[in-house]
Amino acid sequence: MSDILVPDWLSHHARATPDRTALVAGDVRWSWAELDRRTGALAARLATVGVQTGEHVGVLLANGPDFVLLVHALIRLRAVLVPLNTRLATGELVWQAQDAGLQLLVYDESTAVSGLETARIAAVLALSIERLSAPDHGEDTHIAAGPMDLSVVHGIVYTSGTTGRPKGAILTYANHFWSATGSAVNLGVHRDDRWLAVLPFYHVGGLAILMRSAIYGTPVEVQPRFDPAAVNNAIDHGVTLVSVVSAMLRRMLDGRSGRRLPASLRAVLLGGGPAPLSLLEECARIGVPVLQTYGMTETASQAVTLAPEDALRKPGSAGKPLLPTELRIESGEIHLRGPNVSPGYHNHPPGTGRTPDGWLCTGDLGQLDADGYLFVLDRRDDLILSGGENVYPAEVEAALLAHPAVLEAGVTGRPDARWSAVPVASVALRPGYRVSAEELQEFCRQRLAGYKVPVEIEFVAELPRTGSGKLLRRSLRDRWASR
Amino acid sequence: MSDILVPDWLSHHARATPDRTALVAGDVRWSWAELDRRTGALAARLATVGVQTGEHVGVLLANGPDFVLLVHALIRLRAVLVPLNTRLATGELVWQAQDAGLQLLVYDESTAVSGLETARIAAVLALSIERLSAPDHGEDTHIAAGPMDLSVVHGIVYTSGTTGRPKGAILTYANHFWSATGSAVNLGVHRDDRWLAVLPFYHVGGLAILMRSAIYGTPVEVQPRFDPAAVNNAIDHGVTLVSVVSAMLRRMLDGRSGRRLPASLRAVLLGGGPAPLSLLEECARIGVPVLQTYGMTETASQAVTLAPEDALRKPGSAGKPLLPTELRIESGEIHLRGPNVSPGYHNHPPGTGRTPDGWLCTGDLGQLDADGYLFVLDRRDDLILSGGENVYPAEVEAALLAHPAVLEAGVTGRPDARWSAVPVASVALRPGYRVSAEELQEFCRQRLAGYKVPVEIEFVAELPRTGSGKLLRRSLRDRWASR
Repeated sequence: MSDILVPDWLSHHARATPDRTALVAGDVRWSWAELDRRTGALAARLATVGVQTGEHVGVLLANGPDFVLLVHALIRLRAVLVPLNTRLATGELVWQAQDAGLQLLVYDESTAVSGLETARIAAVLALSIERLSAPDHGEDTHIAAGPMDLSVVHGIVYTSGTTGRPKGAILTYANHFWSATGSAVNLGVHRDDRWLAVLPFYHVGGLAILMRSAIYGTPVEVQPRFDPAAVNNAIDHGVTLVSVVSAMLRRMLDGRSGRRLPASLRAVLLGGGPAPLSLLEECARIGVPVLQTYGMTETASQAVTLAPEDALRKPGSAGKPLLPTELRIESGEIHLRGPNVSPGYHNHPPGTGRTPDGWLCTGDLGQLDADGYLFVLDRRDDLILSGGENVYPAEVEAALLAHPAVLEAGVTGRPDARWSAVPVASVALRPGYRVSAEELQEFCRQRLAGYKVPVEIEFVAELPRTGSGKLLRRSLRDRWASR
Repeated sequence: MSDILVPDWLSHHARATPDRTALVAGDVRWSWAELDRRTGALAARLATVGVQTGEHVGVLLANGPDFVLLVHALIRLRAVLVPLNTRLATGELVWQAQDAGLQLLVYDESTAVSGLETARIAAVLALSIERLSAPDHGEDTHIAAGPMDLSVVHGIVYTSGTTGRPKGAILTYANHFWSATGSAVNLGVHRDDRWLAVLPFYHVGGLAILMRSAIYGTPVEVQPRFDPAAVNNAIDHGVTLVSVVSAMLRRMLDGRSGRRLPASLRAVLLGGGPAPLSLLEECARIGVPVLQTYGMTETASQAVTLAPEDALRKPGSAGKPLLPTELRIESGEIHLRGPNVSPGYHNHPPGTGRTPDGWLCTGDLGQLDADGYLFVLDRRDDLILSGGENVYPAEVEAALLAHPAVLEAGVTGRPDARWSAVPVASVALRPGYRVSAEELQEFCRQRLAGYKVPVEIEFVAELPRTGSGKLLRRSLRDRWASR
């Protein structure tokens, strides 16, 4: 299957089903023909400012039609999408802009301050999406789509490593295609499907909704941020598939106050780590078709998902591997392999995080039950999932350690009713130094996205460590949980 | 995308959704787990008689569970399926058995006579499916599935060439996968889908139903032959998708005598060449969701299919190319390209029937209307479609020319209410020879399948030819049509 060329997905749908809906966002409703036309025009504008095939373009935009359009325009040019987390601090963005080797950074009104500052420091051209999208006063230029080589790189999506530095996972068109195919076999594809995107597009969970829409030719409904009332309203008005994390699902359920779910809602995909069993049982009781799913940036989202008929039978399980994915458990760790798995990380040697025979070592612990259903025990050993965001302890520890008073820092997650977990820190000070918890939190806020700042900091004489000096985060976590 | 390995389709479904139905045939109803178990057992039996990876196995079976099982067992062994047309004369079968280089020929009760005779002449091992499927008296051996390399050859499916000799089109797993993907994007995939197979599995139209079932994890319902009452009964009992040719659709409609169609019937795919407009209009009037489709062996079935919303708007059109397929019209001829297109023909040089840049020259004439919808004008210039079977004039002419009295022979199709067309022949005799039409028909019957034998033979002094001596079949056809 080398050199597989297929027609461009968007232009296929624009030709085959031009009048079907491609995108819904507030009052905006674009057909495939309209999305194709706008994509061709934006691609022409991007080409005018110098964006070429293979170049890396940072996208620092809020969820909305502009993000969708820009994703398609970059596909049209075969430029490489680098979605940037809008919640990152400027220092983090600068690091990613430099690591990714961006040629252009696109921002919008809501991200102008950090976008321009990032671009200035990283010496990258920055343009606002408003300016790029403005009506063209010259001739009405438009770039048409050519055949798509699925082995080409579609994007680089950053996923934090446990060393504290994010890694840019390379995702090809084939990775997205196979991920979408696996989901289609599990959930089916209905002509009336409409997938709600409230997860941010800078995360693979949100981005994959866009890619499935582009592959299946079914519409995506985009909401700018998570608002339980807006999600419930969309569900009551024909959204058939929704992807959320537990904290969102909890707030959606509270917001419905027992209002019946319409039959049109086919599935609620629940990602972002193991969900509280009580929540799943409540969903089963009131008939929410919730399907736990397990995936990550490196697998282009879902890799293991519960089948609809198993939702009630196997609560707490993430189900079985989707069509293209092989799964094995090695010494308790989940290993995955398949054509949906990223070929590697940008700026990292080939084989990073892989076994010699090509299995992705997820770092997550899991078990298969007697029927072959996956139960994820721990979302990586020490990763903190807070409101659907990944907080990597090592990264927060690195920020704390940058403070002159801090000798040792250990960060872990504490269970939280609203965010599922929040970061907390144990800190040992250098002899003779003093600093308050509030001062350290403020120090972190200068360096980290708000959700990564420890909500509580305790001062200790020393941190628990293994004989070889490695921090025992699990023991820290147990201590916080029992307080 | 070279070296793409994915888990085996059947074993995926047997693991992910073991209890869902895989196959329905009369009283037989197998789940995916059951089909997987039987497949593993039959694969073990085939291995015992010497079938190895890459070997060519001829399948001369009636449509039924055994055919399905054997297809899966050959996939399990990565042996190459060579489906043989049960309506062929022994001489034709012998030629294909030799051309394909069969290592084994599998027959059933209904094909034992021609199967054993073919195997004897072609010196191929022949085994009955009954014997292969008999309960194993030794240990309960079973071959498990390994990962599937999509670039591997799945089968060789014979399609007659206009030179009169069939050509074995090579179809890979990827060809079937992409064909199924294109159809899924056009029609969707529903969990409750059940596709009715009444087209013979030795044709790509029937075989592709099996492959889609294996890829989607949705059941196939198999009927041993086309019986309008049985088809209507299946439609009334939950079949959601049906593939037929015009002559079948006509008889189905007559058999319903106005009985309402259930809402569960999602689409009737209509292949096998352009359909009479009056039939399509009747379907539109009574609400049969009929979708014309255009495809061939070399494209692993459907390559162009009407979208559901266009059925009434574009009657007579085959629609637009499916997701993986590119289409162009060159000098009136339809050219196709994509990952669903066969890599070539067995025993023919690479590039046969292709342009240098990889387009498949279909030999069919077509036009695109202003909206880009394909209208197929002629199912190849002179091919005769009789009751869903391809009759290639050159092949029939070759049989006639084998008779010592025949100097020239020209075969063409005459429109027929029941079979849509039937072959007729114009023959010029050698000076001094005499033979009756009946004698020539009997002579043909010894050499050709019954449906290929001319229903009428006229004797002429000479045949119409171009200046360069090439037979003008179109002019023959016009003359027969006006008689």
